[in-house]
Amino acid sequence: MIHINGQSKRAMNLVDKYNTRAAAVDSLLCIGLDSDFARLPEEFIHYEFPLFIFNRWIIEQTHEYASAYKMNMAFYEARGDRGISSLRMTMEYLQQEHPDIPTICDAKRADVPSTSEAYARAVFDWFGFDAVTLNPYLGKDALQPFLKRADKGCIILCRTSNPGAGEIQDLPVNGTPLWQVVAETVYKDWNTNQNCMLVVGATYPEELKQVRQMVGDMTLLVPGLGTQGGDVAQTVRAGLREDGSGLILNASRSVIFSESPAQAARQLRDEINRYRTA
Amino acid sequence: MIHINGQSKRAMNLVDKYNTRAAAVDSLLCIGLDSDFARLPEEFIHYEFPLFIFNRWIIEQTHEYASAYKMNMAFYEARGDRGISSLRMTMEYLQQEHPDIPTICDAKRADVPSTSEAYARAVFDWFGFDAVTLNPYLGKDALQPFLKRADKGCIILCRTSNPGAGEIQDLPVNGTPLWQVVAETVYKDWNTNQNCMLVVGATYPEELKQVRQMVGDMTLLVPGLGTQGGDVAQTVRAGLREDGSGLILNASRSVIFSESPAQAARQLRDEINRYRTA
Repeated sequence: MIHINGQSKRAMNLVDKYNTRAAAVDSLLCIGLDSDFARLPEEFIHYEFPLFIFNRWIIEQTHEYASAYKMNMAFYEARGDRGISSLRMTMEYLQQEHPDIPTICDAKRADVPSTSEAYARAVFDWFGFDAVTLNPYLGKDALQPFLKRADKGCIILCRTSNPGAGEIQDLPVNGTPLWQVVAETVYKDWNTNQNCMLVVGATYPEELKQVRQMVGDMTLLVPGLGTQGGDVAQTVRAGLREDGSGLILNASRSVIFSESPAQAARQLRDEINRYRTA
Repeated sequence: MIHINGQSKRAMNLVDKYNTRAAAVDSLLCIGLDSDFARLPEEFIHYEFPLFIFNRWIIEQTHEYASAYKMNMAFYEARGDRGISSLRMTMEYLQQEHPDIPTICDAKRADVPSTSEAYARAVFDWFGFDAVTLNPYLGKDALQPFLKRADKGCIILCRTSNPGAGEIQDLPVNGTPLWQVVAETVYKDWNTNQNCMLVVGATYPEELKQVRQMVGDMTLLVPGLGTQGGDVAQTVRAGLREDGSGLILNASRSVIFSESPAQAARQLRDEINRYRTA
């Protein structure tokens, strides 16, 4: 277990698990299992649970380069109850074969407190994820059922990777963009259990640099490498902590739908590492 | 089909379906099927699909007073694949027995565009809902896969019903609270297909009144009556349109977990109607 500055007294949570795993495989690459049925190779689509069979193959191909796996709920919900079963089977497979690899549920949830309780049960207890992505719009009380789980990770949307992210997130709050207010609020007030992280898209390296300056050692989840166009060198330089870690760098489609997922994962892991030491 | 002022040229969507239904049963009461397994009466819990059996019973008891049904995804996800199956079975039951009652998926979704496409498929196509609740934080481009579905309803969070809603939603954007900026943005820019609505909690009647003044004839989904403490008289007076409609007034726990759901639904429907004509 790696102790982050000033955080050594808390329970083991996703941050520790992530740092341990990242060090063990020398990787900051999180692989996004965004297993869109419409894009699966032909050989997988005739199974009863095609998303699971595909995921298992991707994990077999890529696990030695993976610091974490991130599953976006949308692609499983789009396949109904069998999609949900596939996601659960993927989680069971990971827990059995690779219990040291952290799992992130990319669900971007937020609801009133009694409902967030149910979502937290779904994500952390029924599926067994180590962490979940959350939307800040409803405020801290709405997210409390997640935040109170000190053994789990709560990854709050700050600056998302989509082209139109700025429409709401750049709105000036007393002269400060909303996304910066969110970053500061999470850092100063929501992180009581030292289990918060922030989402900042790789498509916005300047904002990533500013978030890193604002939140000290906090770990950042950075989606948008690969298909969405985020640049590896810029991203690593903008977001890396002084200790060479502190980033969960996610690529999804560019790895899992490439000709060779193993090769794509290894190359991206290595490319990231080149800029960690540069 | 009822034509709303200036909106008669578009495709039939949730707004029309809702107005037709509301007129037919003289009700603005939406019943929230927030069927938390832990709160189900003992007689339901031993079935293979207890949430469906419970929902079917609630629908049998309450349909003649219901202008719509709203299902919160969290309570189904918390029960895993069988929960998802129960929700789908509930939808199939409603489509078969009560196709004229609008169905709202309370999921508060928002993700990058390619992912929102998958969520839209899940909610509108696999489950078959008429409408979905959405979170505005990621901006219009992120919600486009929902917004472009002119035959469906997109209900954007504006002012939520939780006690801490103001933490982010009240932040001043050039002196205007964020929730007002969201209301204006949806009204002026996101509603191209005339299929947008807004969520404003019954626990904030003053804000509800202001939203009504800002968005003209737009239909508003108002959760938070009943257990959350929203006052019926204040809510109806604050949010009603001049034509006596324009509100989807949701109660969940106070109806479905009452001693007599039929009686609770009828009483609340009647109480709402008293203030519609007063």
